[in-house]
Amino acid sequence: MKALAFDVFGTVVDWRSSVIAELEAFGESHGLQRDWPAFADSWRAGYVPAMARVRRGELPWTRIDDLHRAILVDLLVAADIRVTDAEIDHLNRAWHRLDPWPDSVPGLARLKQRYIITTLSNGNVSLLTNMAKHAGLPWDCVISAELFRHYKPDPEAYRGCAELLDIAPAELTLVAAHPSDLRAARAAGLGTAYVARPMEYGPDRPPHGVDRDVAPDDFDIVATDFVDLADQLGA
Amino acid sequence: MKALAFDVFGTVVDWRSSVIAELEAFGESHGLQRDWPAFADSWRAGYVPAMARVRRGELPWTRIDDLHRAILVDLLVAADIRVTDAEIDHLNRAWHRLDPWPDSVPGLARLKQRYIITTLSNGNVSLLTNMAKHAGLPWDCVISAELFRHYKPDPEAYRGCAELLDIAPAELTLVAAHPSDLRAARAAGLGTAYVARPMEYGPDRPPHGVDRDVAPDDFDIVATDFVDLADQLGA
Repeated sequence: MKALAFDVFGTVVDWRSSVIAELEAFGESHGLQRDWPAFADSWRAGYVPAMARVRRGELPWTRIDDLHRAILVDLLVAADIRVTDAEIDHLNRAWHRLDPWPDSVPGLARLKQRYIITTLSNGNVSLLTNMAKHAGLPWDCVISAELFRHYKPDPEAYRGCAELLDIAPAELTLVAAHPSDLRAARAAGLGTAYVARPMEYGPDRPPHGVDRDVAPDDFDIVATDFVDLADQLGA
Repeated sequence: MKALAFDVFGTVVDWRSSVIAELEAFGESHGLQRDWPAFADSWRAGYVPAMARVRRGELPWTRIDDLHRAILVDLLVAADIRVTDAEIDHLNRAWHRLDPWPDSVPGLARLKQRYIITTLSNGNVSLLTNMAKHAGLPWDCVISAELFRHYKPDPEAYRGCAELLDIAPAELTLVAAHPSDLRAARAAGLGTAYVARPMEYGPDRPPHGVDRDVAPDDFDIVATDFVDLADQLGA
């Protein structure tokens, strides 16, 4: 193993708490009261179907920023909220300002000493770059589905990442909290490291995407967080 | 201005001293004596013509690593040096292990506090990523001509960089020691920052590519090094 590629939303950053906090601040500044946790969950829930439309070719290549914005506009209309385009743009960029899980930065700092660490996210390059600056994520490089115009779990994204790093797929391990992502990475020839993020969908909901028929030990590495991952890898 | 894109070879790293040192170590380990500074200069001199063949479409897209290797193999044959493929591979990756100019890391660290800082180099992503790790270059992201399959000075490289960062070309400034690179960036709509690197081609040769008819003050910023650039930008 030469490099670790990290899924980002949910695996590195706590998107739900961050987006709820942004929505609460937005609500407060506009004197609006809504169920912001539910709004955040709906925003996120629109993401996979929107990407699926791109993956199936029903939409031309579209960045996550633009998919997020289209979902947001629909949700604002449904919630009877009217704000300016600039305010929508700012709110949409909440996804550029997500906060890391507490172990993410210290774990990445250790892993970086021994391996190349890169993003491999469906987030666009500018989103990932701004997020890294906001959250202090010490990536060696920023690799995105945008570079391949193929969203995960398309195999082009996993293989393209290894190709850009000029290593064999087997020399690259995907780190993710989502078994579906890891299974697709494995099918593309990558190693797999599952990191549990039980709070991704909040305190009241089980982790999304954990199929009952896929035990975590199907993966090469199973870790409780990034510090545990660094421990297991001797980094 | 929101982001600074840096040319790398010559602007950020002192390729010539680094490659000469690698060649000297290679020579010593093989009991070979050659004019290694001249060998380094010939290696570098092969680079622009090789890229030009790609730019004109005479060669399909080819990474710098592969162009460097083809030039190296020819030079080794001409110098009557026979080594294994693995040794050639290792020597070729000297370009992944280039050392920065003394002001590069402290200057970049300051500039990063205020701006997005990215590479915009003809070096491939893996070369730039390995180099950043070797040299401690604190890039926010690693952008390469490889991502656009267009070498600088093709306009696609400059515009593609702004597009990936999701900013207007005018919000992006190219930092380079080479007027030809800066002129192409300006033609593509970018801002320009010239940084003098008088030692790039060694103590005995004037800077390459400085046309007599282009005074440095044709550019938006003219700096003596990256620390001066940070001073001028209030970073």
